[in-house]
Amino acid sequence: MTTQVINEAQRRATADIFNSAVASWAISAAWELGALDELNQHGKLDAEEFAAANDLHPASTVGMLVALASVRAVERQGNLFVVGENFAEVFRTKSFFHWLSRGCSDLFTDMPDVLRNEKRVGDYYRRDAPAISFACRDINAMCFDPAFWTAMEGLDFTFTRVADMGCGSGERLRQIAQRYPGTRGLGLDIAANSLEVARADTEKAGLGDRIAFVTADVRSMEPRPDFADVDLLTCFMMGHDFWPRDNCVATLRRLRDLFPNVKRFLLGDATRTSDIAPTEVPVFTLGFELGHDMMGVYLPTMDEWDGVFPDGGWRCVRKHLITSLTASVVFELERLP
Amino acid sequence: MTTQVINEAQRRATADIFNSAVASWAISAAWELGALDELNQHGKLDAEEFAAANDLHPASTVGMLVALASVRAVERQGNLFVVGENFAEVFRTKSFFHWLSRGCSDLFTDMPDVLRNEKRVGDYYRRDAPAISFACRDINAMCFDPAFWTAMEGLDFTFTRVADMGCGSGERLRQIAQRYPGTRGLGLDIAANSLEVARADTEKAGLGDRIAFVTADVRSMEPRPDFADVDLLTCFMMGHDFWPRDNCVATLRRLRDLFPNVKRFLLGDATRTSDIAPTEVPVFTLGFELGHDMMGVYLPTMDEWDGVFPDGGWRCVRKHLITSLTASVVFELERLP
Ligand SMILES: C[S@@+](CC[C@H](N)C(=O)[O-])C[C@H]1O[C@@H](n2cnc3c(N)ncnc32)[C@H](O)[C@@H]1O
Ligand SMILES: C[S@@+](CC[C@H](N)C(=O)[O-])C[C@H]1O[C@@H](n2cnc3c(N)ncnc32)[C@H](O)[C@@H]1O
Repeated sequence: MTTQVINEAQRRATADIFNSAVASWAISAAWELGALDELNQHGKLDAEEFAAANDLHPASTVGMLVALASVRAVERQGNLFVVGENFAEVFRTKSFFHWLSRGCSDLFTDMPDVLRNEKRVGDYYRRDAPAISFACRDINAMCFDPAFWTAMEGLDFTFTRVADMGCGSGERLRQIAQRYPGTRGLGLDIAANSLEVARADTEKAGLGDRIAFVTADVRSMEPRPDFADVDLLTCFMMGHDFWPRDNCVATLRRLRDLFPNVKRFLLGDATRTSDIAPTEVPVFTLGFELGHDMMGVYLPTMDEWDGVFPDGGWRCVRKHLITSLTASVVFELERLP
Repeated sequence: MTTQVINEAQRRATADIFNSAVASWAISAAWELGALDELNQHGKLDAEEFAAANDLHPASTVGMLVALASVRAVERQGNLFVVGENFAEVFRTKSFFHWLSRGCSDLFTDMPDVLRNEKRVGDYYRRDAPAISFACRDINAMCFDPAFWTAMEGLDFTFTRVADMGCGSGERLRQIAQRYPGTRGLGLDIAANSLEVARADTEKAGLGDRIAFVTADVRSMEPRPDFADVDLLTCFMMGHDFWPRDNCVATLRRLRDLFPNVKRFLLGDATRTSDIAPTEVPVFTLGFELGHDMMGVYLPTMDEWDGVFPDGGWRCVRKHLITSLTASVVFELERLP
């Protein structure tokens, strides 16, 4: 039996762990409800007015903001909440919190079951796919877009048709279509409910005639006639689903055959870190890695990616490291002859 | 637009919020899976051996322990994890984490919906009742039991039949029956699925003939013949459900009439704090208060309790303050003539 005497610092540290768990949910909610944007724009928010303007339960709205105050994202001055010490970084990383506490909450809540080998069969875990698409849209905009558009602007050919694998909300395809008039897009995703949202949003944006969506598992999909038109391939935040290595080699080779006229493949993803001390792990990484372990999804390291392309029939011509998200990267690939 | 420049301390603080949210789930899981008890007994745990011995997924088991290490509950030494700086306090408060991250996870995940007035109708929130009973059993043992048994030992009469309102798992009734041979117990709870578990556990303990369970909303239940035998009334961690004040007065009066021969009423609960700075809020309080705001349940302060008894037809003869849980108390009440 451990007989550690508990001192005030440990008491405070443990209360902070608890309060941070509440705050993580509050960050996700405050983002969805528009409170974070209002704080970002005006530097302050009146809880009573905000609740009234948005038809929210007043006491719970104050409680949500007090949770943000407990981690210094805001400071409380009576009914007024002003941006606090950690606001800017919390605001920057809001989509990571949303991914964790809104999109993956069931997965983490079920941890005691999900860890038992006997239960790891069939559909043994639950996540909220539309919530994850919502978060990923922002994660993309923040982390991958700068490198993505740099790569797009550096293309040494004029593309006409882009296929986005694991397209989720379809946001990337809409943005490409808007920036490059005359091009067409094809979105492939395994989640039919995400594609419904994607189709509706694409119609709304007036791009329904230029972007099509197809439900498909990109690791095992059959050839389609329109694949022959595709000269640009993109894939963001799902490349790890190609792994483990043997499967990844097979999928990369398959994609090489399915898209015979592709000139460039932009592949962006977060990779597994190694050798970071647990107390130094940066935001997102801990949840991303444990989450994928629980789902039984292999997460390759940067080195493992670097080493797989030649065997898969691709050559890496450029590599953009992402500074805003640990161990993340956009690879620019070309088909090997 | 806020244009705060983000420094390393803010980056670390925000990553710690995120990692703490993951750790809160990991604490709940590690408790349920027996890892916390093993760490408490031996001071260390080998991840690989523990996974093998319990038929757990090895990589996820390591991930769960790394999450504990990120908040200094343990320290990682390769595959070995030893108790860390915050272990003792995390171990002491494990049931609060379980209440939050396992029992109330759905409620907090749904915060953006639960806050909208238009959605606050009908069964608008979800919680995991059996998980909450599980956590409350430990919260009771840790927080309320010392004061509860002190009060029991101080009773100036010999009771024969005790009724426990909001009895949950039935643990309190089984313990009373074991300590006081010849007495009988009656458990009342609104949650039929919790009572199923309670009945089964009571049978298993060989107390099925001495303790009965009845599904009932104690705020509105009808008289029953066996209520007349009850000379001791107990109610732990649900008294706040009597409120707001007018309802509480009515329920207290009703209980006075329903149990005409009660000599003592032991009422233990956590109460709402006021005026604690958000960054100083102790463990449990933030989640407990926001959770009840979201559920639309009034939480009285200690002062509000003190003031309600005379109007409800009861007299407070003794008050035990709980040191292990902020603003918590066991009241000893007697019927006013
Ligand atoms: C993390 S989300 C990223 C979405 C989008 N690419 C983005 O960057 O915002 C991963 C997406 O890949 C999809 N996905 C996962 N495995 C897939 C597979 N084998 N085939 C097709 N889509 C898949 C998921 O349904 C999800 O929409
Ligand atoms: C927080 S748990 C506490 C359980 C147990 N008394 C303990 O201390 O461990 C609250 C219990 O009260 C029950 N409860 C809540 N409202 C009730 C009501 N109006 N009538 C009867 N039981 C109720 C819940 O179902 C739950 O089992």
